[in-house]
Amino acid sequence: MQDGYGEAMHVSAPYHQSISFGADQRRADVGLMVDIAPVSGFAFDSGAVMERITLAYQTYGTLNAARSNGILICHGLTGDQYITGTHPVTGKRGWWDALVKDGGVFDTSRYFIIVTNVLGGCMGSSGPKQIDPATKQPYGLDFPVVTIGDMVRAQTLLMDALGIEKLFAVIGGSMGGMLALEWAVRYPHRLNICAPIATSARHSPQNIAFHEIGRQAVMADPNWREGRYEALGCFPSKGLAVARMTAHVTYLSETVLQQKFGRKLQNKQQLSYGFDSDFQVESYLRHQGQAFVERFDPNSYLYITRAMDYFDLEAEFDGHLARAFAASHVRYCVISFSSDWLFTTADSKRMVRAMNAAGVRVSFTEIATDKGHDAFLLDVPEFHSTLHGFLRGMAEEEGLS
Amino acid sequence: MQDGYGEAMHVSAPYHQSISFGADQRRADVGLMVDIAPVSGFAFDSGAVMERITLAYQTYGTLNAARSNGILICHGLTGDQYITGTHPVTGKRGWWDALVKDGGVFDTSRYFIIVTNVLGGCMGSSGPKQIDPATKQPYGLDFPVVTIGDMVRAQTLLMDALGIEKLFAVIGGSMGGMLALEWAVRYPHRLNICAPIATSARHSPQNIAFHEIGRQAVMADPNWREGRYEALGCFPSKGLAVARMTAHVTYLSETVLQQKFGRKLQNKQQLSYGFDSDFQVESYLRHQGQAFVERFDPNSYLYITRAMDYFDLEAEFDGHLARAFAASHVRYCVISFSSDWLFTTADSKRMVRAMNAAGVRVSFTEIATDKGHDAFLLDVPEFHSTLHGFLRGMAEEEGLS
Repeated sequence: MQDGYGEAMHVSAPYHQSISFGADQRRADVGLMVDIAPVSGFAFDSGAVMERITLAYQTYGTLNAARSNGILICHGLTGDQYITGTHPVTGKRGWWDALVKDGGVFDTSRYFIIVTNVLGGCMGSSGPKQIDPATKQPYGLDFPVVTIGDMVRAQTLLMDALGIEKLFAVIGGSMGGMLALEWAVRYPHRLNICAPIATSARHSPQNIAFHEIGRQAVMADPNWREGRYEALGCFPSKGLAVARMTAHVTYLSETVLQQKFGRKLQNKQQLSYGFDSDFQVESYLRHQGQAFVERFDPNSYLYITRAMDYFDLEAEFDGHLARAFAASHVRYCVISFSSDWLFTTADSKRMVRAMNAAGVRVSFTEIATDKGHDAFLLDVPEFHSTLHGFLRGMAEEEGLS
Repeated sequence: MQDGYGEAMHVSAPYHQSISFGADQRRADVGLMVDIAPVSGFAFDSGAVMERITLAYQTYGTLNAARSNGILICHGLTGDQYITGTHPVTGKRGWWDALVKDGGVFDTSRYFIIVTNVLGGCMGSSGPKQIDPATKQPYGLDFPVVTIGDMVRAQTLLMDALGIEKLFAVIGGSMGGMLALEWAVRYPHRLNICAPIATSARHSPQNIAFHEIGRQAVMADPNWREGRYEALGCFPSKGLAVARMTAHVTYLSETVLQQKFGRKLQNKQQLSYGFDSDFQVESYLRHQGQAFVERFDPNSYLYITRAMDYFDLEAEFDGHLARAFAASHVRYCVISFSSDWLFTTADSKRMVRAMNAAGVRVSFTEIATDKGHDAFLLDVPEFHSTLHGFLRGMAEEEGLS
């Protein structure tokens, strides 16, 4: 495994004859990329069709001869394919760095790990930041609106390109968990295990509300220019920073905020009686906003939050969530975090009840932690050991050595 | 009682000889106003001093001969003196309209109700929107930063002007509850009853975080112009709307959002696959943002949120909250709402524990409701009957007929 750059796969013969795959490319800033061109184009849920799409991805470990040890890991709203190693833009370690290693939860000596930047993202996959060949400018809002279903359909085509008919597991936290659920519900024959972590089968109105605030903050920034900021040489950094600050508060629990910051002042002994950062929590949030604008595309933020808002498996199955999970051999490993108020344990239990009603095999664990939604990205040993144990047990059952 | 305009009080001889009070004025847009000029100026907690301040206020009912039936009601962050009647700007009914009437919770046949716009506000009281005589332009950020302590000190001077040495009660919800607490702790000899509702003895880091997001949204709007928007003929409406949307979500419970909106679409049968309002909750939030910019001053929003952030009775008493309440005859009526996640029942219980530790008389009620923080402004009969009963019992004890 190379640090931060998976082994380049030789792109296999198309699994579907009706799709052509471009040769694997590697770009220093986004890693591996593949062009995917279904004969009749890539059809979005919105009805839009694009001739071809690109997915950027990383792989870790080695695909076995039976092509049966693939684990697709799906990132959250602002994550990307750099799950481990050094991120080429931020220089930081990947978002699940501690889990991906020889003998780790995602054991690279046993599994072949694939992580794609989602469709609509800004780390090499097709999205609003992609250059439109017709105008030589980024698509911006001319890019079709993307759904979780579109993201997953694109991923299935990458699996075709990689010659992987059936994945050992699809795993993800937060939005990544929505993708994992969509895989299990739409393509149950293509995976053994689905692990939706800190997620929900439908985005709640409160979560839609927080996303809408973020979008309004971006679109209120005059530098957003109806999404054409790049062509016009500007950038809505202030709006995007406010959006990130809002989202960030929802990732933390009240307890974490109390423990981490309380009402402590930032580098001062007394209140300033002004509007600069007095409290550490303000300074921290401003920093989070600033760091984000250096790594993320504002239009992608609009697209991906929209995709999450649209996600509603219950509505897709006429109000009967159990039907979504019915008649499937997929094994579910549902995990929630006790202090997560964005994707609550109640959301997970709702899923689990429907899975049980559908008679599918499901294991559910609520991890006791005060770290809030962010827990899925942090060092929470009980979470890691739960996932580790589940995967190892299933791997032994499936004969993956 | 006139609809929306309290009886104009003849301003009494100054209670303190060292303060001069201007004649009572009445302006159609803000109601009653009084100028207050302490001999050595009005000293803010920040150290700033202003020669004179103005408070706008409304009164309802009649002050009795003993001047013992005054109830000061303190508004929340964006409230004002129009607690009942028709608001001169919005045309809507006052924020506690149902409670202020003959025989009501705030029985106008029994009590003399006073409501002031807080110092720093934008409904006639001195604040950043006030015209600076030196420049003939609004003060903007040249107005001193205001604290809850400053707001209350100004109110004590209005009571002096009205000739009220001791109030029967000081009552308020949310920020208004902070003012009520400040009254009881700093001026215990000037009130019998303190009713802090849906509030806290110190603003939490999560609440500071949400306020900071709102301030950043306002200040990120290029039309804010460092607070000089009025002089420059512009208005940061987009930033203020985003600030309001953020705050508004914190006023509602997840349950209310589910019940009121769920994932229902706004005037459409299917998703639009775009960035306009698809969901009712989005449309509702945008409306809340829009309505707010038509009635509130962006700089006042900065000032008042800052005042709440700074509020910390515990810190003011060296980390011993019980000391804040010690050796006082004030009777407390603490009320919280079960689904309020902004000012939680835990916040109220923390206060009540300190009050008990200080040996003061306190009654505490948690009202079971799914309406969230907003419950204090809504028709919640158990809340109203709790407050009504407490006030009537105490009025009988005090001989107020």
